[in-house]
Amino acid sequence: MSIFLAELIGTALLIILGDGVVANCILNKSKGQNGGWIVITMGWAMAVFVGVFAVGAYSGAHLNSAVTLALAVTGAIPWDQVPVYVAAQMLGAFIGACIVYITYKQHFDVTDNPDGKLAIFCTGPAIRSTIPNLVTEIVGTFVLIFGVFYIAKGDVGLGAVDALPVALLVLAIGLSLGGPTGYAINPARDLGPRIAHAILPIKGKRDSDWSYAWIPVAGPAIGALLAAALHMALK
Amino acid sequence: MSIFLAELIGTALLIILGDGVVANCILNKSKGQNGGWIVITMGWAMAVFVGVFAVGAYSGAHLNSAVTLALAVTGAIPWDQVPVYVAAQMLGAFIGACIVYITYKQHFDVTDNPDGKLAIFCTGPAIRSTIPNLVTEIVGTFVLIFGVFYIAKGDVGLGAVDALPVALLVLAIGLSLGGPTGYAINPARDLGPRIAHAILPIKGKRDSDWSYAWIPVAGPAIGALLAAALHMALK
Amino acid sequence: MSIFLAELIGTALLIILGDGVVANCILNKSKGQNGGWIVITMGWAMAVFVGVFAVGAYSGAHLNSAVTLALAVTGAIPWDQVPVYVAAQMLGAFIGACIVYITYKQHFDVTDNPDGKLAIFCTGPAIRSTIPNLVTEIVGTFVLIFGVFYIAKGDVGLGAVDALPVALLVLAIGLSLGGPTGYAINPARDLGPRIAHAILPIKGKRDSDWSYAWIPVAGPAIGALLAAALHMALK
Amino acid sequence: MSIFLAELIGTALLIILGDGVVANCILNKSKGQNGGWIVITMGWAMAVFVGVFAVGAYSGAHLNSAVTLALAVTGAIPWDQVPVYVAAQMLGAFIGACIVYITYKQHFDVTDNPDGKLAIFCTGPAIRSTIPNLVTEIVGTFVLIFGVFYIAKGDVGLGAVDALPVALLVLAIGLSLGGPTGYAINPARDLGPRIAHAILPIKGKRDSDWSYAWIPVAGPAIGALLAAALHMALK
Repeated sequence: MSIFLAELIGTALLIILGDGVVANCILNKSKGQNGGWIVITMGWAMAVFVGVFAVGAYSGAHLNSAVTLALAVTGAIPWDQVPVYVAAQMLGAFIGACIVYITYKQHFDVTDNPDGKLAIFCTGPAIRSTIPNLVTEIVGTFVLIFGVFYIAKGDVGLGAVDALPVALLVLAIGLSLGGPTGYAINPARDLGPRIAHAILPIKGKRDSDWSYAWIPVAGPAIGALLAAALHMALK
Repeated sequence: MSIFLAELIGTALLIILGDGVVANCILNKSKGQNGGWIVITMGWAMAVFVGVFAVGAYSGAHLNSAVTLALAVTGAIPWDQVPVYVAAQMLGAFIGACIVYITYKQHFDVTDNPDGKLAIFCTGPAIRSTIPNLVTEIVGTFVLIFGVFYIAKGDVGLGAVDALPVALLVLAIGLSLGGPTGYAINPARDLGPRIAHAILPIKGKRDSDWSYAWIPVAGPAIGALLAAALHMALK
Repeated sequence: MSIFLAELIGTALLIILGDGVVANCILNKSKGQNGGWIVITMGWAMAVFVGVFAVGAYSGAHLNSAVTLALAVTGAIPWDQVPVYVAAQMLGAFIGACIVYITYKQHFDVTDNPDGKLAIFCTGPAIRSTIPNLVTEIVGTFVLIFGVFYIAKGDVGLGAVDALPVALLVLAIGLSLGGPTGYAINPARDLGPRIAHAILPIKGKRDSDWSYAWIPVAGPAIGALLAAALHMALK
Repeated sequence: MSIFLAELIGTALLIILGDGVVANCILNKSKGQNGGWIVITMGWAMAVFVGVFAVGAYSGAHLNSAVTLALAVTGAIPWDQVPVYVAAQMLGAFIGACIVYITYKQHFDVTDNPDGKLAIFCTGPAIRSTIPNLVTEIVGTFVLIFGVFYIAKGDVGLGAVDALPVALLVLAIGLSLGGPTGYAINPARDLGPRIAHAILPIKGKRDSDWSYAWIPVAGPAIGALLAAALHMALK
């Protein structure tokens, strides 16, 4: 499997299961409605587990443009692969979000909650304010990327054997740092599904909150650069 | 242990623990009543863990006719073993459901909720509509089988060492894709216990919803075929 | 460490953490009050994990007289060790329960719930009726012991490497089969702390429900014998 | 990476994720508000996992002055390293707490709950009383340190491979023994963030409860000494 295909499939799995758990908790009549924060965070953690387990052997399972950026900065992967990774992640995330919409179509139709519907696709701040929201995403991604370096051990990314540690790392970040912004910590995870939200014919949807869209891209990028810098300084 | 006996025992364990957690959450006076979605999904995940751990060494622990179908399609197991697997799974699931009934007998007697009692045995849609319900089961099973191929690594099925990864995969699917139909993702898991519901002298039971019964059989079969096709195309 | 000391310490750890989680969920002003079934079952599962991890290398970490009985029946341990194991387990469980009382002393004092206080020490049926209660304990213990045989792989018991599988097995049983009787599935876990309840000067305590006390001893013993018989028949 | 830097970074990660989960559950408008005891205890357990995984290879990942004390008493590390470990842990915990404050700054501002804000940084008793509070911390830390000895296996501390067992051990203690005092079980975890609470310009904060501050230092120290004594006696 090529890197492009592996990242596309892995990120699609990540978003099917990640956006899926939010749909399950938010949408009316869904059996997991109001499942609570433990369901949301376990769902995203297991989404990471499945995505990394499936494609780790083929692409190093970044599934996250911030991971790709950090591994390029430290020289673990060549820079000319970065566009391949990022394009695959964005496309995979977009496809994954469409599959969640198809899976929960009827529940979207019976739910009158435009903000909740947007929250299934992409993150939004609990209290809107540029700098604090950016800082929260930087901190969360910093912890993710700093941890990923120790899990990846200098490799081009993560293998199937790393699926559980990285899933627990994402579980930790969600439980602990997800409160203010919903922990995008991954540009592809946020932007790909946000585009899907804009395009899909979702009943009663609101706008896709484009004014916020740059924060879950820039914050994770900055967090990744800081983590890469510290990691290199410590070596 | 023969394949037949291993699949029968493994699937019985799966259903004792899987249908059991639904009984615990639904039935009156049960200590786990209203345990919530995290209890339901963890219960089914751990049910998979126990079943696969116990019989993986003997039959590859399919415990799921969709898994058996997919592994036959890709040539991992010979086609003439398929009826053995499927028969054992159906019988094991039937027996497991009977054991849940015996274990929770008094709680069935004090619960006046015919739909809930049926839900202990087999799945039902949150919003009834043939195509969407079928699609949901196809998507869920596709993710399951696609993941199982990477866990099984070309083998005839799953061993004890694969019990945790596959349990976490099922946890992910339940948390994220279980909302619309209750994630049968396994014809034996649904049909065997549905037959038990029809036969058992459950106090105040409703009909066994036979008009829906083909969806958790056909959906998983289609999902398995699609996953097998993609898996082979990617090789 | 001798078998006696290992089983005593391991069972004390099991009960400190197992009875402890019930105290945390039930007693007034405790920070985990009303934590729910996921907290109770995870607490007991992690209690098993810790106990088995600590003493597995010394005694095979039975920590459960039903496990000891089953392993004696199948010849994994000699019969003359059975009294050593059982006495250590009972004493360890008694000591563990006393430590829970000391740890939660102030919370016992501010809680006016005699049934809840008893439930911290030992199990009781949700619906009292001899045969169904016995059957529930037989089924739960049967699943436990049948699973333990595959985890122990013919050894004298469980080692540190088996701590996670057996903890997940106990998690499964709690989530799924714990509803009717609170899953004693272990004579020592129930009887040792029940004796502690009878002796300790707990404020506002009720009687120790001795008429029920034989069921969480006999049920697990019968379940263990049935599982051992099936295990031997399958070899 | 030096021991000092490793312990500083590891303890900072522990507190970012540990204090972070409390902030997420307590502060107004946070997406995890009222997540419940399972969120709190899973958050702290995963915080331990991440901290130990990241720096285990460099310092043995004590991240806890009680662990350092116990390993010095048993001779696993030389006494002259103790001040290095403890200073790094205190400073790391202080820094971690400051990062939590920055991450949740806006949520601190919109929450009118001085006790809750303090609880994000450090522990406090559910029922204030010196001896019982001390006893609870002694028991919890005793179980932690006694378990750590079996996980560390005579080594200078914990490696990445020990991250999951020790995380589950901390999960067990939180679920089961955390009710009365909030399980500090670690002087650095409590004192470092308490100092941060005293210094940081938190809106509407109360005093830092210095009269209680010695208990989550002395209790863990005593518990560690008792566990070390028992461990040595058993060898």
